[in-house]
Amino acid sequence: MAKEITSRSENYSQWYLDIVYKAGLAENSAVRGCMVIKPYGYAIWEKIREELDRRFKETGHQNAYFPIFIPKSFLSKEADHVEGFAKECAVVTHHRLMNNPNGPGVVVDPDAKLEEELIVRPTSETIIWNTYRDWIKSYRDLPILINQWANIVRWEMRTRPFLRTTEFLWQEGHTAHALKEEAITETKLIHDIYADFAETVMAMPVIKGAKSESERFAGALDTYTIEAMMQDGKALQAGTSHFLGQNFAKAFEVKFLTENNIEDFVWATSWGVSTRLIGALIMTHSDDDGLVLPPKLAPIQVVIVPIPKPFDELMVHAEKIADALKARGISVKIDKDEKNRPGFKFAEYEMKGVPVRIGIGARDIENGVLEIARRDTKEKTSVKMENAVDHVVVLLDEIQENLYQKAIEFRKNNTYSVDTFEDFRNIIDGKGGFVYAHWDGTAETEEKIKELTKATIRCIPNEAADEPGTDMISGKPSERRVLFAKAY
Amino acid sequence: MAKEITSRSENYSQWYLDIVYKAGLAENSAVRGCMVIKPYGYAIWEKIREELDRRFKETGHQNAYFPIFIPKSFLSKEADHVEGFAKECAVVTHHRLMNNPNGPGVVVDPDAKLEEELIVRPTSETIIWNTYRDWIKSYRDLPILINQWANIVRWEMRTRPFLRTTEFLWQEGHTAHALKEEAITETKLIHDIYADFAETVMAMPVIKGAKSESERFAGALDTYTIEAMMQDGKALQAGTSHFLGQNFAKAFEVKFLTENNIEDFVWATSWGVSTRLIGALIMTHSDDDGLVLPPKLAPIQVVIVPIPKPFDELMVHAEKIADALKARGISVKIDKDEKNRPGFKFAEYEMKGVPVRIGIGARDIENGVLEIARRDTKEKTSVKMENAVDHVVVLLDEIQENLYQKAIEFRKNNTYSVDTFEDFRNIIDGKGGFVYAHWDGTAETEEKIKELTKATIRCIPNEAADEPGTDMISGKPSERRVLFAKAY
Repeated sequence: MAKEITSRSENYSQWYLDIVYKAGLAENSAVRGCMVIKPYGYAIWEKIREELDRRFKETGHQNAYFPIFIPKSFLSKEADHVEGFAKECAVVTHHRLMNNPNGPGVVVDPDAKLEEELIVRPTSETIIWNTYRDWIKSYRDLPILINQWANIVRWEMRTRPFLRTTEFLWQEGHTAHALKEEAITETKLIHDIYADFAETVMAMPVIKGAKSESERFAGALDTYTIEAMMQDGKALQAGTSHFLGQNFAKAFEVKFLTENNIEDFVWATSWGVSTRLIGALIMTHSDDDGLVLPPKLAPIQVVIVPIPKPFDELMVHAEKIADALKARGISVKIDKDEKNRPGFKFAEYEMKGVPVRIGIGARDIENGVLEIARRDTKEKTSVKMENAVDHVVVLLDEIQENLYQKAIEFRKNNTYSVDTFEDFRNIIDGKGGFVYAHWDGTAETEEKIKELTKATIRCIPNEAADEPGTDMISGKPSERRVLFAKAY
Repeated sequence: MAKEITSRSENYSQWYLDIVYKAGLAENSAVRGCMVIKPYGYAIWEKIREELDRRFKETGHQNAYFPIFIPKSFLSKEADHVEGFAKECAVVTHHRLMNNPNGPGVVVDPDAKLEEELIVRPTSETIIWNTYRDWIKSYRDLPILINQWANIVRWEMRTRPFLRTTEFLWQEGHTAHALKEEAITETKLIHDIYADFAETVMAMPVIKGAKSESERFAGALDTYTIEAMMQDGKALQAGTSHFLGQNFAKAFEVKFLTENNIEDFVWATSWGVSTRLIGALIMTHSDDDGLVLPPKLAPIQVVIVPIPKPFDELMVHAEKIADALKARGISVKIDKDEKNRPGFKFAEYEMKGVPVRIGIGARDIENGVLEIARRDTKEKTSVKMENAVDHVVVLLDEIQENLYQKAIEFRKNNTYSVDTFEDFRNIIDGKGGFVYAHWDGTAETEEKIKELTKATIRCIPNEAADEPGTDMISGKPSERRVLFAKAY
C-alpha cells in the first residue's frame, strides 16, 4: 500500500515533513540544517527559475555571478546590515588541511590561516556594491539591472526543509539607478512581478504591501513583501523587494556624475525569492494524500498508467496519447513499470501531486474511452479516446484555476477584521489566520503585540483603504488597518 | 577609438586577459582568486549550460542539489581523494560574528566554533556517496543518474579568470550502477557527449583519450578526457569523465542486493565541465581584435548598427530586419545608441565577438541593399534587402563551420609525431604544440619528461593506432604513441 502520511488535523508540522520526504522533494543531509534537494524537488525549482528568469529578462535584467565569499570587513560597512546578519555567518578561517600528525585523518593546517576571514554570503549587497564602485562613473553607466541565481548560507538555529535551511538557493537582484524615483519604480516593478508569478504560476494568492520599519531588510529604507496564507492560518513571506536608498552607495562610496555634472550617490534596490517558495507551494495546495501541484509548476503534468494486461498492447495506445499530449506542450510520463500494481501506483502519483492521471486498460480500449482523474478534486471522468487530448488541455487550466480559487476561498474564510485586542487575541491564539487591525504606527506597540501573541505585522497592505480608527492596544489614532498574523 | 588589446605575438597571456576584461566577460573581485562573471560572460555560460543540460536530460539524467559543505571527516574516507584535495580547501570553522570588543567592526565569535570543521566543496563525491548509502538498497534502486549545477571552491595559488579560479561554476554528474560494465558505458557516454558538445557547439576540435595513472582524478580508476589545442600550442583539458570503480562505495559503505540476492558494492562514475570552457572558447577562436564566438554560443548572434542619419527612419528598417531574424530563432540586437559613432561601435562589437554585423544607412535603403559583415574573416558583403535574412541564416552556419575548420587546421599545423627526445624537446621548448611520441607506460618516465620539459601526457588517445616503438627516454618498448603537450 501507499506510504502513509500524518493528517493535517493530527499534526500539521509532521504532515508538512511527511510530504517533503515521501513525495521525494528533499531530505536532511549530514550537514546540520542543510538539505539535499532531490530530483523531483529540484525539477520544481527549475520550473520556478525558468518562469521568473524569463520575466526578469523581459524587463531588461541580465544575469551575472559574484563571489560566494565576502571579506569580513565588507559586512561592517553598512551598520544595519551587519547587525542583521553577523549572528548567522559561516566563517572561513583557513585554506588548507594537513595530515593529522597525531593520528588518522586530516586536520586544519594552522599555517594556512587567512589574513582576513571570509564570510560565506548570507546575501550579496556588500560584495556587489563594492564591485559597482568600479562600474559606475557617470549617469551613462546607469541603470545597472543585474540578477544572480546563487546559493546562500545563513546559520539558522531551527531549520525546516525549504522553509528555513542553513543553505538555500535563491535569486537576488541588485540594481543601481541615477534617480531615487527610478529605484522606487524598480522596487515596485519587481514586487508586481513576484505577486503576478505567485498568483498566476503558483496559484497562490498573496497580499502585497510594505513592511513596518522593524520588519524591513537590514539596510533597506523600504521593504515590499508578498504574504501568502498557509493552511494552518500562518503567513509566509514569499518574496521581498527592497528600496535601499543610498545606504550601500554611501557605505561603498559609489558616486556618479549626473547629467548636470554634479556628483551624487547611486540609488539601489535588491530583491529575492528562494527555494522557500517550494515550502509555500506545499502548504498552499497539498492535502492529506500528499502533494498537490499547480499544473504550471508540475514536473510531470500527466501520468499515464496502463492497467495490465496485455501490457505491450496497452503501451502502444499509451504512447500514442503521450505523443499527442507532448505535441501540445504537456509533460507526460508513461509508467512502464510492470512490477507494482495500479493501486499502488495511483497512490504514489497522488503523493507526488501529478495533476492528471490517465488510466488505460484493455476494456477501455474496447470501449474507446479513457479514465481521466484529476489530483485536486479526485474526480474521475470517462472520456472518449478521440477527445482525450483536448480534455486534458482544458483540464490542466481548470486545475490551475481551481487551486487558485480554493486558496482564495480558504484565505477569505480565515481573514478577519477586528477592533479590540480581545478579539485579536482570540483569533491569533485560536484557529489563527490573517487579522486586519488598527495600529498606531509605533515600534513599541508592534513589539508589545508580538510579545503577547507572537503575531507580527506582515505588511501595510497596498490596497488597504483609508479608514481612520484607533490602535487596539494604545488607543492612539490610526489611518488604516494593517495585516497581522503569526508567520513562518 | 576602440579599446586596444595586446597582440598574441607580443604577449599571449596579456592578450587573453585583455579579451576577458575588455569584452566584458569577467573581472577580478575583492576576494583573492575569485572572479566576478559579468553579464556578457555569464550569458555565454547560460548557453553552455542549456546545451549540456538538454543533452544530459535526453540521456536520462536528472538534476538535484547537494550541500555546499562537506564535513571534514568525509574527505578522509577515500585515501587518494583526500590526498588530492586537502591542500586546497576553504575551511569553515565558526558560525557567528560578534561586535569587536576592542574597537570598530566585527570579529569571529570564539564561542561559535564548530565541533567539526566544514569544507566548502572542492567536488561532491563524498557528500553524495554518503547520501546514496540511504538511497540504494537493491538493484531496483539502480542506476542513479544525477547531475548537479553548482559552485566549487579550490584554493588555487596562481589564478587566471575562467582557466583557474578559487571559485568556479560547473556541473558534476554522479552516477551509481549495479554492474561494472554499466558504469564504464556511462563514463564513455558522457565522454562522447563532452566531445560532441565541444566540436559541434563550441567549434573546438578535441582529442579524446584516457589519462595516464598519475594524471587521473583523485579516487578514479580511469579518467577520460577531451584535450583541446589553444593558440599558443598548449593543451587545455576541457572536460573529464571518471570511472570510479567501487572506491567511493567502499569508503561510504554503499552496498546493494543484486538480482541474485548477493550483497555487492555499487559502481560509480563522476564527470564535469566548468566555466573553464569559456577560457577554452576564448583561446580557440579569438584574434588580435578581440573575442570571436561560434554562433551557437553567441549571446548576440547579429547586431544591427544604423549609420546615422536619419536615425528614426533607419530604425524602422532595422526593426523589420530584426523581427524577421528573430522569427528564424536568431538573437539580434539593434544598437539604438545615438551618441557613439559607427566606427567606434564596429570595433566594440568586434571586441565582443558578435558573429554578424549588419550596417544600415540612408544610401543602403535607397539602393535596397544591406552591408553584412562577418566577424571571423572580417569579410563584408552587400546583400539585397529581400535576401538578407536567408543570407544571415546560412552565414551563421558557415561561420560555425569555418571556426571549426580553422581550429582543426591550426591543430594539424601544430601537431607532430617524433621518435627522439631531442626532436621532442625542440618542439616543446620551441613553438609548442601537440606531440605524439612513444612512452613505456611507467610513471617514472612520465615524471622525468615533465621535469625536463614541463610537458605532460595529455591522454592515451582513443584513436591511436597500434604501432610498436620504443620510449624516447628509456628505450623500453611501447605499443602506441601517446599525446604530450604543455598544458593549462
